[in-house]
Amino acid sequence: MTSTADAPRSPGRPRSSRADEAIVEATLDLLAEGTTVEALSIEAIAARAGVGKATIYRRWSGKEALLRDALRTLKGPPPVPAGVSVRDDLITLLTVIGDNSDARAVRIMPCLVPEVHRSVEQYRLYQELVEPRRQAMREVLWAGVDRGEIRPDLDVEVALAILTGPMLVQKLLRWQPDLDDAHLAERVVDTVLAGLANR
Amino acid sequence: MTSTADAPRSPGRPRSSRADEAIVEATLDLLAEGTTVEALSIEAIAARAGVGKATIYRRWSGKEALLRDALRTLKGPPPVPAGVSVRDDLITLLTVIGDNSDARAVRIMPCLVPEVHRSVEQYRLYQELVEPRRQAMREVLWAGVDRGEIRPDLDVEVALAILTGPMLVQKLLRWQPDLDDAHLAERVVDTVLAGLANR
Repeated sequence: MTSTADAPRSPGRPRSSRADEAIVEATLDLLAEGTTVEALSIEAIAARAGVGKATIYRRWSGKEALLRDALRTLKGPPPVPAGVSVRDDLITLLTVIGDNSDARAVRIMPCLVPEVHRSVEQYRLYQELVEPRRQAMREVLWAGVDRGEIRPDLDVEVALAILTGPMLVQKLLRWQPDLDDAHLAERVVDTVLAGLANR
Repeated sequence: MTSTADAPRSPGRPRSSRADEAIVEATLDLLAEGTTVEALSIEAIAARAGVGKATIYRRWSGKEALLRDALRTLKGPPPVPAGVSVRDDLITLLTVIGDNSDARAVRIMPCLVPEVHRSVEQYRLYQELVEPRRQAMREVLWAGVDRGEIRPDLDVEVALAILTGPMLVQKLLRWQPDLDDAHLAERVVDTVLAGLANR
């Protein structure tokens, strides 16, 4: 009974079909056009993708699971640091903060901000997107402690926020127009490593 | 012809009348209920405040000027640091970041994020709210350089973002659930002052 289409798959995420891609694209298009996460419906996604609702439910358990895949597609994978110096690795990770592989992200990501506070599911979705990026940064700092580059008594979780926060507020809010600078990641990393205190 | 109501005013902002307050309140209520800045109309504000449009136009040149006053009311004035140590002054300024004197701000401020990118007027409005807070922090850092507490070669504008960014992303986005901590401002200030590099 094993046809080509039903051939046993290797473990992990199944290969994306053309319909799956159309469904993810439809989700992102609707969000980019201003549909809120709350208002987004499987019906509307199915209509936009030109598929039936059953096709969506064969692949995803519901809106949350579909949104998770769609937003992951939007963000793309985090970069892999070279592992030579903390400074270079942090610059690699910081440079991509707020950058997105997809132009629709500029419209979608800021609009998610108010939604994040509205439901436990949406907050969890947001954390699932963010945590792998925090973890990559944590590993750079831990390696730096091992090599003696980073203070062993560092408040690592706060350090992650201190590195990420300025990049995010600048990319999302354009918090300070004078900081629209291609070298912002370097400036942030150098200032955070050195600290503000006079010695 | 000078009646009491038309008595010459001292320079600066005129005293707020009961109607002015109702207009500002109506503006904030509409925003808190989900009306976008783009969709907000003088008609809707007038109806909500129980005044005629002419009453609004007597005091404000238009929506932008009214929004500016309404959002200033929402944020309240920034705190005045004691001027004793950079550490204490920065903690004073950082503690109030993302805090607001008005409960409606929790709904309004994050919703402004996407709007900030949509028009020059809204971005200017946002910068008018933010710049006095940046300036207060700049003055603390400059005073710290004068007293020898802060590195004289500090990249001050980046330092402002490094101090503000983590507080804002935590308050607006709850970026990292583990950092929901009443002492976050202290942890940020201590880590930023000391820097990450081992010495």
